[in-house]
Amino acid sequence: MSDPPVLLVLDLAGTFAFALNGALTAVRTAHLDIVGVITLGMITAVGGGIIRDVLLGALPPATFVDWRYLAVAAGGGLIAFLFSRGLDRFTRLIDLLDAAGLSLFAVTGAGKALELGVGPAQAIILGAVTGVGGGTVRDVLIQRVPSVLSSGLYAIPALVGAALVVAAESGGISTLLGVPVALGAAVVCFLIRMVGLHFEIDAPKPPGIEHEGSGASGNDGG
Amino acid sequence: MSDPPVLLVLDLAGTFAFALNGALTAVRTAHLDIVGVITLGMITAVGGGIIRDVLLGALPPATFVDWRYLAVAAGGGLIAFLFSRGLDRFTRLIDLLDAAGLSLFAVTGAGKALELGVGPAQAIILGAVTGVGGGTVRDVLIQRVPSVLSSGLYAIPALVGAALVVAAESGGISTLLGVPVALGAAVVCFLIRMVGLHFEIDAPKPPGIEHEGSGASGNDGG
Amino acid sequence: MSDPPVLLVLDLAGTFAFALNGALTAVRTAHLDIVGVITLGMITAVGGGIIRDVLLGALPPATFVDWRYLAVAAGGGLIAFLFSRGLDRFTRLIDLLDAAGLSLFAVTGAGKALELGVGPAQAIILGAVTGVGGGTVRDVLIQRVPSVLSSGLYAIPALVGAALVVAAESGGISTLLGVPVALGAAVVCFLIRMVGLHFEIDAPKPPGIEHEGSGASGNDGG
Repeated sequence: MSDPPVLLVLDLAGTFAFALNGALTAVRTAHLDIVGVITLGMITAVGGGIIRDVLLGALPPATFVDWRYLAVAAGGGLIAFLFSRGLDRFTRLIDLLDAAGLSLFAVTGAGKALELGVGPAQAIILGAVTGVGGGTVRDVLIQRVPSVLSSGLYAIPALVGAALVVAAESGGISTLLGVPVALGAAVVCFLIRMVGLHFEIDAPKPPGIEHEGSGASGNDGG
Repeated sequence: MSDPPVLLVLDLAGTFAFALNGALTAVRTAHLDIVGVITLGMITAVGGGIIRDVLLGALPPATFVDWRYLAVAAGGGLIAFLFSRGLDRFTRLIDLLDAAGLSLFAVTGAGKALELGVGPAQAIILGAVTGVGGGTVRDVLIQRVPSVLSSGLYAIPALVGAALVVAAESGGISTLLGVPVALGAAVVCFLIRMVGLHFEIDAPKPPGIEHEGSGASGNDGG
Repeated sequence: MSDPPVLLVLDLAGTFAFALNGALTAVRTAHLDIVGVITLGMITAVGGGIIRDVLLGALPPATFVDWRYLAVAAGGGLIAFLFSRGLDRFTRLIDLLDAAGLSLFAVTGAGKALELGVGPAQAIILGAVTGVGGGTVRDVLIQRVPSVLSSGLYAIPALVGAALVVAAESGGISTLLGVPVALGAAVVCFLIRMVGLHFEIDAPKPPGIEHEGSGASGNDGG
């Protein structure tokens, strides 16, 4: 599913957006040096795919072996390191790219999981893990409760996008229309994410727990 | 070793207890949404087995591939999300189930490690990792120093239970009496854990470091 | 590359130094019991090699399967637990051993990665990961932002040492002079690390971010 050039280009664009966004979050949150900023950008970008491949037993992980992913991720981290102040003006663009990355990672992640023969529930989980795993590892390293667990609509669009891929596959649609189905699922994920960002929608909280006025936009990477 | 139905049922019961307990700990400690609570319940329940299988190279991990574990874990997390307040009355029952889960995971984890041919020291470590790994990952995600590292008797009963399995195996007892030996080792682990909980026993602290009056019961999941 | 006895002895010495240093850092930073201190010492010592082997798909990980590494690591952790106060006098010696461990791990890690056929960029990254991975996991578990991301020259000497191994390999020098090349690269890594420690050099920070007077020596394990 990741073979067609159009998906590869989109996947690399998502990798770049994740690295940029992840490194910017790291710069703003913790006092890191150049090694730390670039490392966290790269982890945000390729961490989700690595966790997916570890759980699939598809080692060494594809995004680690393919130098293009590493180079694009390192480039995004370096740009964030050099221009962290100037990039504040592009918050909206970076949010857009990040939502695109989330969507593509969820869809290609679920597709790869299906190819390797796991069940539908596992494929949906692995799609979401591909999308949110890198940002989660980054948040752990800079001592934040991962925002994906606490605020905003981030995991849910990824789960929906991955579920659409799995549904299309089990309905036999994907073999005929692989790339269009993948792009359609990614667009749905992207739209849910952008609507959630715009209206600052949060996923439900446990009943009876008072809600903090977090209002966090959650726009901080994979 | 995990084939006999009685062990499978017990393993699933432990999975449920870990998910319930792990998700409740997450609800009480951090401000999470429904995705966060269920995710942390599932990680608590199947995380230890996943780390064990990664270290054994037995990929994809068994508890991840088997939908029954995922379903039971997700169910435990969902129940904790919905009824987190009401479940406060059942603290003692949940402690019991959690100790049972710890015991079963340590014993089946050590057994699986032996089956896959690692040495006795590694099998004991992997038994304990199966029991405590999931709760450790959960604690890292919600920004707590893992309680297994700092208070209560939690890792030690798991190590003892795993060591009994390894000793029985090297003594040739397990081939004759697989399930009884496993259950016996689990009962020993369970009793040490419950005695430690009841009397609030802590493992030794480094000499010369003043001891905090922590007195934490440590009853917070795998 | 890790076969010759001289490299094995040095590797085990590095393992011991990492365990000692990692466990001491754990004792000083968090309130842990004996299980926690020894566990964190062992994770500091063998964690980097385990992450490397997971990323290489070389499972079960070599430092986990080989009981000598586990025994040396557990011994270092136990000594740190028992003598944490007395060891304060040996800070300089422990720093030396830790720098030696970093150097050897970076070099042997890059060598193993090359043997298993990954590309040069990946081999350099895996060399550095072998050196700094264990300390990073320890820092996450005791709730510190990993010092390797924020202060001191720690990752950079490891990257340089690993890069020298990769350069020698691609120049065809290693096949003739395996051990001398490895030792030479380790010595370069060691010297950069010691110079950085002595002059308290930090890696560059992002431009425009005010610099904290951290001045941390960063001498806290792998």
